[in-house]
Amino acid sequence: MIVVRAFGVSLDGFGAGPNQSLENPLGERFTEVMEWFFPTRVFQKMYGSGEGETGTDNGMAEKSFDNLGAWILGRNMFGPVRGPWPDESWKGWWGEEPPYHVPVFVLTHHARKPLRMKGGTEFFFVTDGIESALKQAKAAAGGKDVRIGGGATTIRQYLQAKLIDELHFALRPILMGSGEPLFSGLDLRALGYQVADSIPGERAMHVIIRKKEKP
Amino acid sequence: MIVVRAFGVSLDGFGAGPNQSLENPLGERFTEVMEWFFPTRVFQKMYGSGEGETGTDNGMAEKSFDNLGAWILGRNMFGPVRGPWPDESWKGWWGEEPPYHVPVFVLTHHARKPLRMKGGTEFFFVTDGIESALKQAKAAAGGKDVRIGGGATTIRQYLQAKLIDELHFALRPILMGSGEPLFSGLDLRALGYQVADSIPGERAMHVIIRKKEKP
Repeated sequence: MIVVRAFGVSLDGFGAGPNQSLENPLGERFTEVMEWFFPTRVFQKMYGSGEGETGTDNGMAEKSFDNLGAWILGRNMFGPVRGPWPDESWKGWWGEEPPYHVPVFVLTHHARKPLRMKGGTEFFFVTDGIESALKQAKAAAGGKDVRIGGGATTIRQYLQAKLIDELHFALRPILMGSGEPLFSGLDLRALGYQVADSIPGERAMHVIIRKKEKP
Repeated sequence: MIVVRAFGVSLDGFGAGPNQSLENPLGERFTEVMEWFFPTRVFQKMYGSGEGETGTDNGMAEKSFDNLGAWILGRNMFGPVRGPWPDESWKGWWGEEPPYHVPVFVLTHHARKPLRMKGGTEFFFVTDGIESALKQAKAAAGGKDVRIGGGATTIRQYLQAKLIDELHFALRPILMGSGEPLFSGLDLRALGYQVADSIPGERAMHVIIRKKEKP
């Protein structure tokens, strides 16, 4: 399956904050959307110091890493560098051992050599479009799921192409006000999607969207 | 207080369906957004035959009628007639005894005499804008709350003018795909609003938005 998991969206429909930068990789204030994730045991194990909470939000966060064989990321998810790569010094936001542990395909207009990191993550830079990235990711995933990690623009492109089978959004009841809209101008219903489930968590409502079965 | 209560919005941010008509007063398919309301005891008492459910959704629906002294409605909420009133035969969607029981101010570009209905509802037709309607509604409400009933366009106008103190949205986890967007192009954060509470109901998430206190 091609999936999106644990993707945060604000009440007013934003999938990223305004003005992405090195200081604000998800855009300004988007951490407020991610606040459902930070207290979970999953997040605390990866980046934190505490034990973390083990409720519904944590359960959904755990599931979001199940059975993944490859990831696809938009370039802004990989880093703040725009235009041609000046050198190979930028190696992602995550340090020496990124949390992927599988091949990760990064969409970009600028070629770059694959980048092998500790712990099984290898970044491949795909310059010939979303369908090519998906084909490569599927081949690399070896029958497991391919997770499209974001950002909002990347998810919108794959949705528009009807290439995603299942999406899990974590809808945070906060107002972003501005940023990158996730649903705007996208007729998900006409594209064949429907809500399969919604699960209230401690700090977000988890909504599962699936492509309708063809009759 | 000037309030919006129990206003339905879809996951993808629509506050009304496409193609409003006599058959579909809320636009096509918007009944799917209202499905949280239909099973409640409040709704069943007004329009139904059954007892209705008494959970969180019903509690929020009950509260939505508390302490109301007047309503404001956009013209489409009052009826499907567009342009000048051809006659006075259209008396609203609700039959002889509408569920308001207080003065209701209808925004329109076309003058019409007030319309007194059974049970205390009287419709007044306001042709000189949203601020005038609010002024008249406040005077009529005698210290109680003024509820802005909708539709989406009317709520957006009052939000843009920062005239609403508190909003309760019932966010339904369904995809409308098209219709009238509620949040699109509206920076609620910059307008001074923030989420005060969110309460998961049986079929909707109830989100309370309030104007921030001035420092």
